[in-house]
Amino acid sequence: MTEPPTVVLATRNTKKVPEVRAVLAEAGAGDVEVIGLDAYPDAPEVAETEPTFAGNALLKAHAVARYTGLPAIADDSGLRVDALNGMPGVLSARWSGHFGDESPDKDDANLQLVLDQLADTPAERRGAEFVCVAAAALPDGREHVVEGILRGRLITERRGENGFGYDPIFVPEGEERTTAQLTAEEKNAISHRGAAFRDLAAGLRVLL
Amino acid sequence: MTEPPTVVLATRNTKKVPEVRAVLAEAGAGDVEVIGLDAYPDAPEVAETEPTFAGNALLKAHAVARYTGLPAIADDSGLRVDALNGMPGVLSARWSGHFGDESPDKDDANLQLVLDQLADTPAERRGAEFVCVAAAALPDGREHVVEGILRGRLITERRGENGFGYDPIFVPEGEERTTAQLTAEEKNAISHRGAAFRDLAAGLRVLL
Repeated sequence: MTEPPTVVLATRNTKKVPEVRAVLAEAGAGDVEVIGLDAYPDAPEVAETEPTFAGNALLKAHAVARYTGLPAIADDSGLRVDALNGMPGVLSARWSGHFGDESPDKDDANLQLVLDQLADTPAERRGAEFVCVAAAALPDGREHVVEGILRGRLITERRGENGFGYDPIFVPEGEERTTAQLTAEEKNAISHRGAAFRDLAAGLRVLL
Repeated sequence: MTEPPTVVLATRNTKKVPEVRAVLAEAGAGDVEVIGLDAYPDAPEVAETEPTFAGNALLKAHAVARYTGLPAIADDSGLRVDALNGMPGVLSARWSGHFGDESPDKDDANLQLVLDQLADTPAERRGAEFVCVAAAALPDGREHVVEGILRGRLITERRGENGFGYDPIFVPEGEERTTAQLTAEEKNAISHRGAAFRDLAAGLRVLL
């Protein structure tokens, strides 16, 4: 019997591990064992300093693969607002400035700033998209990168309690609810992150 | 003797009138009499609701030309930051949200937000440009639009007391001082607004 391949998800967010495990299983990579970075408490923090989602995802995946000696996967994601020329983009998590990563109010401050910046922007110009770039990297330096996109529009007031970040103001195309009003399963099925990790599963099959 | 042509500058900012008068005179349109919108206290306020500088400048120029029955000139300007995909752009005056137009802290809040958003952005990616679009409109609907650009880079701390808006953190190409450290004359000679209004002077010669 062959040992099942293990990959490290380059995140300390423990909620993400079962989510990614479920997506990979569904995409036919269910034999892949996914562990979180919490198994490596001394792993160095990787700052997302690149100007692109792909740059940041690769930076994290390579750093974790080198540190752990295991295949690593990482993602970087954000919101691109048409009326803001595609920003906040890679600055989505710190759009309103630096509150330190631990502040529970940071997400809400970022969301509120986007609402304020678009206060005068009419419905027909409130298009936006969630983007997720997922990357896999091996300790030997090989890599694979994929992108998932969810198009939608921004409403003017928060709706829903699920999800995080900009979810309460984002309504996907073909939906009337925000992504914060979808269940985790409904969101995974259509989301940028779900799409990216489903694509990544196919890439993992080749790499591992 | 012919009456000198009079144009209305679509601004309530009384500092702008002598500035524009000086630029037009220097550009050979010194016989044009420039008056401010303060001569029309009941003129309706025109909101800058267009997604482009040109759209806003034209909106204001046409509205004032229609209201006053005189040729009108207007401008819209802002800062385009490379690392923000060209934003704040048309949102430059309300980048940090809506503080109401009268707040003296608004400029500083906008500037501080850009500094915070670029806190991690290294010097080689801190390029930016000031843009000014100036428009002239006649009561009969004819119009002329020009654009001026000043390339430069953003520093990480405020320097200088002159100017307004983002001037304290903007260093023009070929300069070591910020635009807030230049005299009004030095700034006019190289600025986006100076360039746009010099171009507009030529257009006015044809229109009037």
